[in-house]
Amino acid sequence: MPTTPAVNPRTGEALEVPAEDTTDAEVRRLCERAATAAPALAALSRHDRAKLLERIADGIDTHRDRLVDIAVRETGFTATKLGGEATRAAYQFRFFAEVVRDGAYLEATVDHAADTPMGPRPDLRRWLIPLGPVAVFGASNFPFAFSVLGGDTASALAAGNPVVVKAHASHPGTSAASFDVLCEALHAVRAPDGTMGIVYGLAAGAALVADPAVTAVGFTGSFGGGKALLDVIAARPDPIPFFGELSSLNPVIVTPSAARASGVDIGAGLVASFTMGSGQLCTKPGFVLVPDDAAGTALVDAARGALADGTDHVLLNDGIHAEYLRATAQYAQRPEMTRYAAPSASGPGYHVTAELVEVDLDDLSEAMIHEVFGPLTVIVRYQAAEPSAAAAELLDRLPNSLTVTVHSTDDDDNAGLLALATAHAGRVLFGGFPTGVAVSWAQTHGGPWPATNASHTSVGATAIRRFLRPVTYQNVPTDLLPAELRDGPSPVARRVDGILLLADTDAEFR
Amino acid sequence: MPTTPAVNPRTGEALEVPAEDTTDAEVRRLCERAATAAPALAALSRHDRAKLLERIADGIDTHRDRLVDIAVRETGFTATKLGGEATRAAYQFRFFAEVVRDGAYLEATVDHAADTPMGPRPDLRRWLIPLGPVAVFGASNFPFAFSVLGGDTASALAAGNPVVVKAHASHPGTSAASFDVLCEALHAVRAPDGTMGIVYGLAAGAALVADPAVTAVGFTGSFGGGKALLDVIAARPDPIPFFGELSSLNPVIVTPSAARASGVDIGAGLVASFTMGSGQLCTKPGFVLVPDDAAGTALVDAARGALADGTDHVLLNDGIHAEYLRATAQYAQRPEMTRYAAPSASGPGYHVTAELVEVDLDDLSEAMIHEVFGPLTVIVRYQAAEPSAAAAELLDRLPNSLTVTVHSTDDDDNAGLLALATAHAGRVLFGGFPTGVAVSWAQTHGGPWPATNASHTSVGATAIRRFLRPVTYQNVPTDLLPAELRDGPSPVARRVDGILLLADTDAEFR
Repeated sequence: MPTTPAVNPRTGEALEVPAEDTTDAEVRRLCERAATAAPALAALSRHDRAKLLERIADGIDTHRDRLVDIAVRETGFTATKLGGEATRAAYQFRFFAEVVRDGAYLEATVDHAADTPMGPRPDLRRWLIPLGPVAVFGASNFPFAFSVLGGDTASALAAGNPVVVKAHASHPGTSAASFDVLCEALHAVRAPDGTMGIVYGLAAGAALVADPAVTAVGFTGSFGGGKALLDVIAARPDPIPFFGELSSLNPVIVTPSAARASGVDIGAGLVASFTMGSGQLCTKPGFVLVPDDAAGTALVDAARGALADGTDHVLLNDGIHAEYLRATAQYAQRPEMTRYAAPSASGPGYHVTAELVEVDLDDLSEAMIHEVFGPLTVIVRYQAAEPSAAAAELLDRLPNSLTVTVHSTDDDDNAGLLALATAHAGRVLFGGFPTGVAVSWAQTHGGPWPATNASHTSVGATAIRRFLRPVTYQNVPTDLLPAELRDGPSPVARRVDGILLLADTDAEFR
Repeated sequence: MPTTPAVNPRTGEALEVPAEDTTDAEVRRLCERAATAAPALAALSRHDRAKLLERIADGIDTHRDRLVDIAVRETGFTATKLGGEATRAAYQFRFFAEVVRDGAYLEATVDHAADTPMGPRPDLRRWLIPLGPVAVFGASNFPFAFSVLGGDTASALAAGNPVVVKAHASHPGTSAASFDVLCEALHAVRAPDGTMGIVYGLAAGAALVADPAVTAVGFTGSFGGGKALLDVIAARPDPIPFFGELSSLNPVIVTPSAARASGVDIGAGLVASFTMGSGQLCTKPGFVLVPDDAAGTALVDAARGALADGTDHVLLNDGIHAEYLRATAQYAQRPEMTRYAAPSASGPGYHVTAELVEVDLDDLSEAMIHEVFGPLTVIVRYQAAEPSAAAAELLDRLPNSLTVTVHSTDDDDNAGLLALATAHAGRVLFGGFPTGVAVSWAQTHGGPWPATNASHTSVGATAIRRFLRPVTYQNVPTDLLPAELRDGPSPVARRVDGILLLADTDAEFR
């Protein structure tokens, strides 16, 4: 029996669950298969691996409507949000195909034998190789872009690793259908058996992280869930890397001059951002620093106005729903917090309404500072004369985040605000809102603990780096070397005897 | 009172210790100073940071004789080994100055705002920034190259981080004198106060790793010491990265054809390698797979011949000396192991003689498989008909290592041996011996657990990557951006809109 029943969050109706919880023996078998597949997958040429990724992207496009239908029923997200996510998932696979074809991610480096001030140096050639089977944990809130078909799967496969996914209990049917899409694509390109596996259930997730064949974990989820898996890793004889994205409050700083210049637009934009995906995005702006003056009040009024339509939101599951009700009720009880909300939604599923709460910076207590999944944000008012001091105080008191956003004008100490924001996040925005994470070469989706626990990112080209390790070949005969490390025209950019060289366009592609 | 008395390992005479154990309060104060220095150090231009590193290298050259004198007394190493190390330490600082000037280590990436299949993309600019104060643990066996003036200090400073070093108890005077060299250089270039600190004593090391200001740890040392520090990190609220190099057996595979072709040379070379630095190198070949045939026996005989001069070796300290005597005595008691050694050395200090032990692969038991610091190696004989199977069996039974070395000829399954060796190490050698680690762009000094616990290296250009984290600026105004991320000619190589571009030689250096 599955441990968690599947439910349509919009209607409360029970849904058929496609799979029983995976037994420990079956987890072991899948990991063993992945370990067997690893050398064959690593030996695929970059060209063949890129084709594999593109075939998966094509599969997502082909099965898109069916996937979205299933996910709509399981998650309560709109078809628009889910369709966008499917587009993003396919885009990510194609993007990593481009990264693999480019080949610079291999960090190929050649030092020929030479005399140096340190004495004779042997011939040394370095590149990055796949780690081995990777465990990927699907996230509740992105059933496509951060789940079975998500960025962790795409980047781990791109690096040349087999993947075993732990399906999230909030969308088992979506996960199963997604896995079928993967299998169809892998079959079509004759990928090694065991390239992908999937497991269901909490216990299976723990067994997966404990499995001796697993070499790394990609996780997007709650702080508690992440810490539990870190404990499993601590009990392993070998401490494998855990790339966890755990928690983020994504503070937004609005200076008095920005509030004067465009407070009304900021207020409306804020509501659009923090209610996107019913507020269940890891980049939701959770704390917004607003001056305690007329322009600041106009900003808050504009936000209240945007909320007034009382749009009904649906949360993903019973746990998130209950926690949202608990957190909003707790905020509402605090006399120092002012609450702006439509009356609570009711119904058979997990309906809620969006809320703003407002508090003075001086009254902000530790107990108020935590992530709330759902359409809620906390407005923190500060004395308008001291924007930089207020920003420093708020950012020092909040845990570090994926993002910090600054709304300012030329009149502000922007260099100071940039330095402050950079110290607390992996992405710093000037203007705009942090929701919506572009998939591109320059993206970072990570930040200092507890945003993530690694100097890496789960979105963008360098996500692939998490699942690779360096190896150096010393005096290895040329005919044993990969094309990327041989002398002569190179198919990839590389550093040779200290000089960075671009790929030779006429080098035969391998 | 210092917890460990300093002793001349060659004579047993007590040495003056330059410093008391550092108190917890003083550790806190040094970390606080480092945290204060961090922003100013990060704000130094790459040019200024390169000059700082070169000034330290010059200081090492200037004070070289005095440093070596002190280290000879404290470590028992020869002036030749220590002089080579001082050369290496200075070279490392100059090498990282080159890495910093080159600037490609910043991974600068620019994605201009554009329409994409995912919708409009904002302007995104990514680079790597310093983590903050780094704790560096000096190693016993490299009083210069992996200690106060070692590669961890050089790479952490190069990345733009303040460093607090824990001095190794085996060479406190060398550490203090090294620290003075650092301070003189930092003073000369007017580096921020707090750029470097030093602490003494085991408890101070633990307090350092626990300190809230510390953002990463670089460690080279014993498996036990590393695990103890990992426990300190596990008890922190934020799990900072620990770059530990813990243990390595560095297996050497000799095929029957290689033994026939050059067994005598391999035997003599092996002895030179495993007795280098009195066998106290992390890359010492610890297990050597030799065929059980006449050519293999000739190899072993050549090694015995090279041992026969009975050269006296001196170990670093009481703990290493006692452990070496214990381990060699234990091997000697095993009837399945054959021992070749000169009579034990005796004297007031930590003198020992080099030893070979020999065992059949079939008789190799778990209890025999562990690292022994000192001039000892284990020859493992295997049935000559099955070299690949024997290599696979040995490597699967040994823990992973920094290096695997293959001695083979064209008659062997070299592709198979390369794949096997690559799966178990971070550096694979064909021919030669693993001792002697060139400092260069393509070097890797790391490997799968327990060799190291991270996909990084502590030697070579990419060592700098351990102490940096990515940040992406979204729609940040141009005048706030660093030179490396502005439009126009670039002082560093970078990727712009997906295309890798070399540095513009005419871009103004910053």
